[in-house]
Amino acid sequence: MAVYTQLGAEALGALIGQFDVGDLVSAKGIAEGVSNSNWLVETTGKDGAGARFILTMFEGRTEVADLPFFLGLLDHLADGRCPVPRTIHDREGASFRWVDGKAVALIEFLPGVSLSEPTAGQARAVGGALAQIHLAAADFAGGRANALSLAGWRELLEACGPHGLSDIHPGLGDLVTRELAALAREWPQDLPRGVIHADLFPDNVLMLGEEVTGLIDFYFACTDLFAYDVAVTHAAWCFSSDGVRFDPAISAALLAGYEAVRPLSHAERAALPVLARGAAMRFLSTRAYDWINTPADALVVKKDPMAFARRLQFYAANPGLFAA
Amino acid sequence: MAVYTQLGAEALGALIGQFDVGDLVSAKGIAEGVSNSNWLVETTGKDGAGARFILTMFEGRTEVADLPFFLGLLDHLADGRCPVPRTIHDREGASFRWVDGKAVALIEFLPGVSLSEPTAGQARAVGGALAQIHLAAADFAGGRANALSLAGWRELLEACGPHGLSDIHPGLGDLVTRELAALAREWPQDLPRGVIHADLFPDNVLMLGEEVTGLIDFYFACTDLFAYDVAVTHAAWCFSSDGVRFDPAISAALLAGYEAVRPLSHAERAALPVLARGAAMRFLSTRAYDWINTPADALVVKKDPMAFARRLQFYAANPGLFAA
Repeated sequence: MAVYTQLGAEALGALIGQFDVGDLVSAKGIAEGVSNSNWLVETTGKDGAGARFILTMFEGRTEVADLPFFLGLLDHLADGRCPVPRTIHDREGASFRWVDGKAVALIEFLPGVSLSEPTAGQARAVGGALAQIHLAAADFAGGRANALSLAGWRELLEACGPHGLSDIHPGLGDLVTRELAALAREWPQDLPRGVIHADLFPDNVLMLGEEVTGLIDFYFACTDLFAYDVAVTHAAWCFSSDGVRFDPAISAALLAGYEAVRPLSHAERAALPVLARGAAMRFLSTRAYDWINTPADALVVKKDPMAFARRLQFYAANPGLFAA
Repeated sequence: MAVYTQLGAEALGALIGQFDVGDLVSAKGIAEGVSNSNWLVETTGKDGAGARFILTMFEGRTEVADLPFFLGLLDHLADGRCPVPRTIHDREGASFRWVDGKAVALIEFLPGVSLSEPTAGQARAVGGALAQIHLAAADFAGGRANALSLAGWRELLEACGPHGLSDIHPGLGDLVTRELAALAREWPQDLPRGVIHADLFPDNVLMLGEEVTGLIDFYFACTDLFAYDVAVTHAAWCFSSDGVRFDPAISAALLAGYEAVRPLSHAERAALPVLARGAAMRFLSTRAYDWINTPADALVVKKDPMAFARRLQFYAANPGLFAA
């Protein structure tokens, strides 16, 4: 949540001139995204009626080699009538350009706000939108391995050091050791897979009322089990942010919304308990790693790994949660 | 440069409903302002054609008791055809409201971008806009003492402790002691005064080409010498940000632009050398104080006080700089 790079108005104006979107009218650095810099840019528009865009400068975690996958996916999903922003291609047809050695992309601006307290009706719509991208991505040619699955979690958690997890919270090390072993044993292999969002938190969903107007921030998108994406979205939406309180009405609405568009197979539903524990482990692992390895003076708010340890414990304690 | 407060979409929607501006369509936290939280808000507009606003939540340094002055000043200057954003009053006529114990104001959005490398033509326009607000503020009824003048600088610099300044840079303590004494002796008293912006850095000026489309962030505005405001703007615009390089063409254009709208008296011009040293001392004092007193883990970028120590030395070494 930051703007890491200063980009002068002069450089911005020249950059915008490389696209067929009119002249630069306004640009505000916005506090969005975890590891990229973003500006909300306004131009005179192709037709002079004004247009808005999100300009993203890729920093840190996003690998430039993956940009054609991420940006091509947006275009593919938008073509498939999913509520995702299109990539604006420059006058030469490129989906991203270089500024000061960093890749930048101009992305369509979509209306809508990110909810902090969704209603059941809104959760239902989010479930439906998630299913919609799973269906639309089926004929997308690109693919990308999920670096943040079992092996990735284990690597991050081991990098926390022998006492790192217990220093965060007594017992956290034991919970992680036990669950990593169980997940390795129980992880399903033969479920339907394809391109998933893999990070569909409320921050990454724009809504107006009960309509999903935008799914954004696809920079963790990868090829993995569709039902795992359902589990990630479940972990992201159905709890208070600290993981203390579970909301059964949101849970039911999210799953019903998904199944209204893409029904889960029996095997997928049966796998949800273990997939949900995996989803909790995924965010626990990155948060614990960042908790220990982020310098105290870094310009980011460190997120509490315990919020996902609580979800993990909740899922482990409630294996019947997803029974149809 | 941050968003200090999380304001949920639900709370934002309810807040926007208190104004006659249509329904909330979008809200992005923007990385602007030093001590307030700001959102770029889009609504359906009164007429359904869409409208944009800056929503400011006042935190930290801005005293709520001063809000009627700041917001009333914006309205007065906008009425006087100055390029400043109007305050949007709520349905009950109030210029600010309360959310979670904090004051918030809805401010007109203005097009334009903040320059990092102004041309002489642009500096000329900025000088003209500064003179315009000095003239337009002449019949503004409000007033506010300048807490960041001689006594305020001395207080902040003394709070840096006996070795604080020398720890920042060897010799800085001596420079400050010598200059504070000289400024106290030489500071002019009988020049024209009125409401001034007092912080007109490039960040606070929106431009399109050579047109000033917005002067913003009036939260240091106060009653003081008009020529001091010219000196502040000079210190803000005529140097590389680190204070190493002075640009005589920008300096000449800024002053010429100002005088094309409001000619300086002989006494005002004669006072510019000491006023410019004062302007440099003003930003040196707050930056040195913040440098020493900002916790290492605070979510702000500390600004180098030496950038203004260099300006101070430059002005002291070039007393003939402002000779007409």
